Amino acid sequence: MRDITQLSPKQIRGLIRKGKWDKPTAGLAMGYAQANLVIVPEKYAFDFLLFCQRNPKPCPLLEVLEPGKFQTGFLSLDADIQTDIPRYNIYWRGKLEGTVKEIKNLWQKDFVTFLLGCSFSFEEAMLRASIPVRHIEENKNVPMYISSIFCKPAGLFDGPMVVSMRPLPPDKIVPAVKITSRYASVHGAPVHIGNPLEIGIKNMKRPDFGDPVTIKKGEIPVFWACGVTPQAVVMKAKPDLCITHTPGHMFISDLLNEELALL
Amino acid sequence: MRDITQLSPKQIRGLIRKGKWDKPTAGLAMGYAQANLVIVPEKYAFDFLLFCQRNPKPCPLLEVLEPGKFQTGFLSLDADIQTDIPRYNIYWRGKLEGTVKEIKNLWQKDFVTFLLGCSFSFEEAMLRASIPVRHIEENKNVPMYISSIFCKPAGLFDGPMVVSMRPLPPDKIVPAVKITSRYASVHGAPVHIGNPLEIGIKNMKRPDFGDPVTIKKGEIPVFWACGVTPQAVVMKAKPDLCITHTPGHMFISDLLNEELALL
Repeated sequence: MRDITQLSPKQIRGLIRKGKWDKPTAGLAMGYAQANLVIVPEKYAFDFLLFCQRNPKPCPLLEVLEPGKFQTGFLSLDADIQTDIPRYNIYWRGKLEGTVKEIKNLWQKDFVTFLLGCSFSFEEAMLRASIPVRHIEENKNVPMYISSIFCKPAGLFDGPMVVSMRPLPPDKIVPAVKITSRYASVHGAPVHIGNPLEIGIKNMKRPDFGDPVTIKKGEIPVFWACGVTPQAVVMKAKPDLCITHTPGHMFISDLLNEELALL
Repeated sequence: MRDITQLSPKQIRGLIRKGKWDKPTAGLAMGYAQANLVIVPEKYAFDFLLFCQRNPKPCPLLEVLEPGKFQTGFLSLDADIQTDIPRYNIYWRGKLEGTVKEIKNLWQKDFVTFLLGCSFSFEEAMLRASIPVRHIEENKNVPMYISSIFCKPAGLFDGPMVVSMRPLPPDKIVPAVKITSRYASVHGAPVHIGNPLEIGIKNMKRPDFGDPVTIKKGEIPVFWACGVTPQAVVMKAKPDLCITHTPGHMFISDLLNEELALL
């Protein structure tokens, strides 16, 4: 196989579709937006769409498909949601029952697909501006914490906001706020800067998801709304059936990160 | 009655609720956001919410209520959608059947309420920056045209984008783009600058809605997505029943325009 990091989004989706790539997608198709996936039956779709509308920072909608549709029309013109994600998590009544490489056999005509922005997009912009991204430096997953910030409930769905943390030296905070503010459709500006206790986080060394990272002397923890929030909220609501991507195994779109930026 | 232009949003809504104000709301509660109203039965709500998600420039959602709810939670904490709009249009199967001052008798427990941003918010910002707003100078309604720009369809809903036009001297165009870009939740940046024919508008003197305004020598027509679009699209889809505000008779919120601005 050619070096996969050099392939286009379409080429990578082709490999994934044939079952030849089922690993995480970080570092692939640099420059292109990747997306979180949530699929729920139609009876839950209005409430979940409303939840996303009310909570755009943790749940930035990039594309929503009509009931039964599995072909995207905005993020790509030749993608198939049933096959083009490396790994899918299958949840029955909120419980993870398995992980699969395609969902053709599970597809139902009342499935509604939601694709949500991912912080990979703004991390790339941070790196271009010489702002350090610690978990990338340390080759880890970003540390994520369940905060005491409550999302606005909508119908069945409610719960706390999950936040991701990137430690920054003080002189990089203003540039980081400015840069991530441009990416409102992929979580946008931070939700909190500084003392973790103020948003209910007691132990930075024990993230609820992902890995702990080094916070150097003088660095300030900076927190962003995280795309794990919608999945956590959906799980809590225990729909009969819900399908998501397996964390880190994202949908790769044909949209440039730069096309998502404001201004 | 005291001079109504000096009253707070809450005081004005109180007058409207008692049936003491059923006139247009332009110029009232300056500084506060006003909103367009669309109410549809629940069976249409997912499609309409999806239409708004796909077409944020003509359909900028400020707040959506759960089925049956008539009290807002974001735009105001003490507003009642059944009584707090000066005039309502009642459409049966897409046809205007009447105009009323309250809808308590018509309320159904499956009604879903959508409140959408209004260009009053960015016009105030333009005026503060010494950018002329011709229809305000001429004491007219803004001219609106059905353009050849097509909205992205969603379920039942599709149709052309309605645009509003404000003529500007060339040196005011860049400032107007910058200022309105900050107000993405109230239509945002222009959708077209210059030749009206390029977006299918043949006769500037005959707007489809509102009044024609003077375009002075050397001025360029500048077009913004318009909040009449969602109403036009809903009417075209002919839902059994739909209730909107009567044009110009808006919902007055407690949210400052400045709170809607990006950056």
